[in-house]
Amino acid sequence: MFQINENYLKLQGSYLFSTIAKKVSAYAAANPDRKVIRLGIGDVTQPLAPAIIEALHKAVDEMADAATFRGYAPDLGYAFLRDAIANEDYKAWGCDISADEIFISDGAKCDSGNIQEIFGTDNKIAVCDPVYPVYVDTNVMAGRTGIYDSASQMWSDVIYMPCTAENGFVPDFPKKTPDIIYLCFPNNPTGSAITKEQLQCWVDYANKNGAVIIYDAAYEAYISQEGIPHSIYVCEGAKTCAIELRSFSKNAGFTGVRLGFTVVPKELCANGVPLHSLWARRHGTKYNGAPYIVQRAGEAVYSQAGRAQLKEQIAYYRKNAACILEGLRAAGYEASGGINAPYIWMKAPDGMTSWEFFDYLLERANVVGTPGSGFGPSGETYFRLTAFGSFENTVEALDRIKAL
Amino acid sequence: MFQINENYLKLQGSYLFSTIAKKVSAYAAANPDRKVIRLGIGDVTQPLAPAIIEALHKAVDEMADAATFRGYAPDLGYAFLRDAIANEDYKAWGCDISADEIFISDGAKCDSGNIQEIFGTDNKIAVCDPVYPVYVDTNVMAGRTGIYDSASQMWSDVIYMPCTAENGFVPDFPKKTPDIIYLCFPNNPTGSAITKEQLQCWVDYANKNGAVIIYDAAYEAYISQEGIPHSIYVCEGAKTCAIELRSFSKNAGFTGVRLGFTVVPKELCANGVPLHSLWARRHGTKYNGAPYIVQRAGEAVYSQAGRAQLKEQIAYYRKNAACILEGLRAAGYEASGGINAPYIWMKAPDGMTSWEFFDYLLERANVVGTPGSGFGPSGETYFRLTAFGSFENTVEALDRIKAL
Repeated sequence: MFQINENYLKLQGSYLFSTIAKKVSAYAAANPDRKVIRLGIGDVTQPLAPAIIEALHKAVDEMADAATFRGYAPDLGYAFLRDAIANEDYKAWGCDISADEIFISDGAKCDSGNIQEIFGTDNKIAVCDPVYPVYVDTNVMAGRTGIYDSASQMWSDVIYMPCTAENGFVPDFPKKTPDIIYLCFPNNPTGSAITKEQLQCWVDYANKNGAVIIYDAAYEAYISQEGIPHSIYVCEGAKTCAIELRSFSKNAGFTGVRLGFTVVPKELCANGVPLHSLWARRHGTKYNGAPYIVQRAGEAVYSQAGRAQLKEQIAYYRKNAACILEGLRAAGYEASGGINAPYIWMKAPDGMTSWEFFDYLLERANVVGTPGSGFGPSGETYFRLTAFGSFENTVEALDRIKAL
Repeated sequence: MFQINENYLKLQGSYLFSTIAKKVSAYAAANPDRKVIRLGIGDVTQPLAPAIIEALHKAVDEMADAATFRGYAPDLGYAFLRDAIANEDYKAWGCDISADEIFISDGAKCDSGNIQEIFGTDNKIAVCDPVYPVYVDTNVMAGRTGIYDSASQMWSDVIYMPCTAENGFVPDFPKKTPDIIYLCFPNNPTGSAITKEQLQCWVDYANKNGAVIIYDAAYEAYISQEGIPHSIYVCEGAKTCAIELRSFSKNAGFTGVRLGFTVVPKELCANGVPLHSLWARRHGTKYNGAPYIVQRAGEAVYSQAGRAQLKEQIAYYRKNAACILEGLRAAGYEASGGINAPYIWMKAPDGMTSWEFFDYLLERANVVGTPGSGFGPSGETYFRLTAFGSFENTVEALDRIKAL
């Protein structure tokens, strides 16, 4: 008799967004005259930029002609895209990353879930708390996390690194030494950023302790301040300890287009085995390349027109972020993030829990956000708002919150 | 110190197609005046059908307008595509499969590699010999295959089911009872088909022995004979023992577009746990949906215009297959497949090994095929030719082979 992967049974229900959806539906049904504004989910709303649309149409036309039709893509991605990334995302920032260290994929969620697979099951992982749930859940599926304790909402074999107002939402080194460290900066959900000096300390720590850092830089396009690193490879020694995950979802609005990439430097080894060769083998065996037309869309992100248009698109969302952050502060709330990230992290007022504040905001202001407790125990009493709505809705949502 | 997944180190080199590429490059460089015809790799060459091109352009335009822009897709696929599949690929053939048992993905290679993950590592797998290498390699990565013996070219914990001329390239039941059985019909690489009666015996065997069948039906569009099942779900009892993998690569030329799906019936359980919920959880955690524009392209495959155009496209490749099969037989070769599949499986003449015949054909006829030994020990002395070239090249290749 065949057996299932028992680790799946240990997974906790992923009720966060489905519970939100149910509560919002119920409220909307009971109050059909109210306009509910959603600032909860991290999905973009602006259409694709004209340069990207043009590239997509052109690539579609190529697929219509036998002379220019493209079948299977190269496993690791087309050279035109890998070269553009190496030049614009790395060499332009002074990072020595070559095109063949870049692996094109269908998005950072897949990569952040799959990357753990090249590591042994005995490795101990460390995650920020609060955290993007995919890092932990995919390690649960692989059997790396031990037993779940529902009282503390923690796994016995996971090292949690609290990110709190006290440490500016940037974690301190953990007491136990981890093997694999997940870091996401600019951060989801807190919207906090890490300075180059702070990140250098993490790189030094990883190299000293023989740990590998999985660095999720999906939100780097939102960095507005000097001294905040756009890539971990600006840090000295990062190539011997860090894998970087990148996305086109938030810098180019590709949430429904699906494109991302992972950087695995060739120097990064465990006992002489380069992780680059393991990830290449995984890609070649379990993946068949991102669609040609989507890779051409990715190339357009780096074109002169594409860059100019996307600068505007990001400025649009940044204006929303500023509106939320300033609006909340003007209304007397404690709020952070939003300066180098599209997320604003606010403290629920008057000792409310995250879910109490969710209900309060939905009922009193008809505004939907995400309860911070859904991202981990240190997220309790916090609340996440996103900058990805329309400007008009964002302004109206903040006016309502201010009027409470 | 972090550790790698040691199972990756057990993987054998995947040298088949890279060795072919090297040999062809060397030959072409030494003989620049010769026109080499490639009938080796299973990649399509015909452009996308007009109905699909139209759907892609339309979907791209939708992404250009905020009112019709689409962000994150539903994890398991858009209803418009899942409904079309349920109706056209299942209900139309009398199979009771509902839309919510269909999981849209970016292709059957990914699904066939990922599906093993929902099973425990102690399960014993059975595979046909010869076989599509992804089934075995992904189980090696998961630690399910034991030790590799280079003399026999077999893994100690894999149950091999020889597919030979004697059994018509349809396997007999294995002596040891497997937990997970991989079947691919119409078959890659042999091009053989399985009758409904034969497949019903496998379904009965699986239900009796508590095994699960992973049924890869990527080539079903090439079935031309009555009595050959287009889906395993035409067999009674298949919904309690079978998962089916399907692809848009070969029926619609989507090798570079990337779309596929997997069917997991809700009745399929292990100790009361539905595999449907496990695969849904995997999809939701490690995958983010196929691109909207690609799912619209998939929908067009089922439109009236799309179906008519693709019927012609498949007829084109079928004509190639017939040309190869008849040409080889006329030239005195032992050959099979090609009637319900785009692959022709031929016996190398005069006691040659697969690679000897590869060299012979490359040098003497300037035709490239795939050595059967690359698919497993029972493939030795066999050779695979594909019908995915242009008709002109296929005719010319066969003329050259006949003239040898």
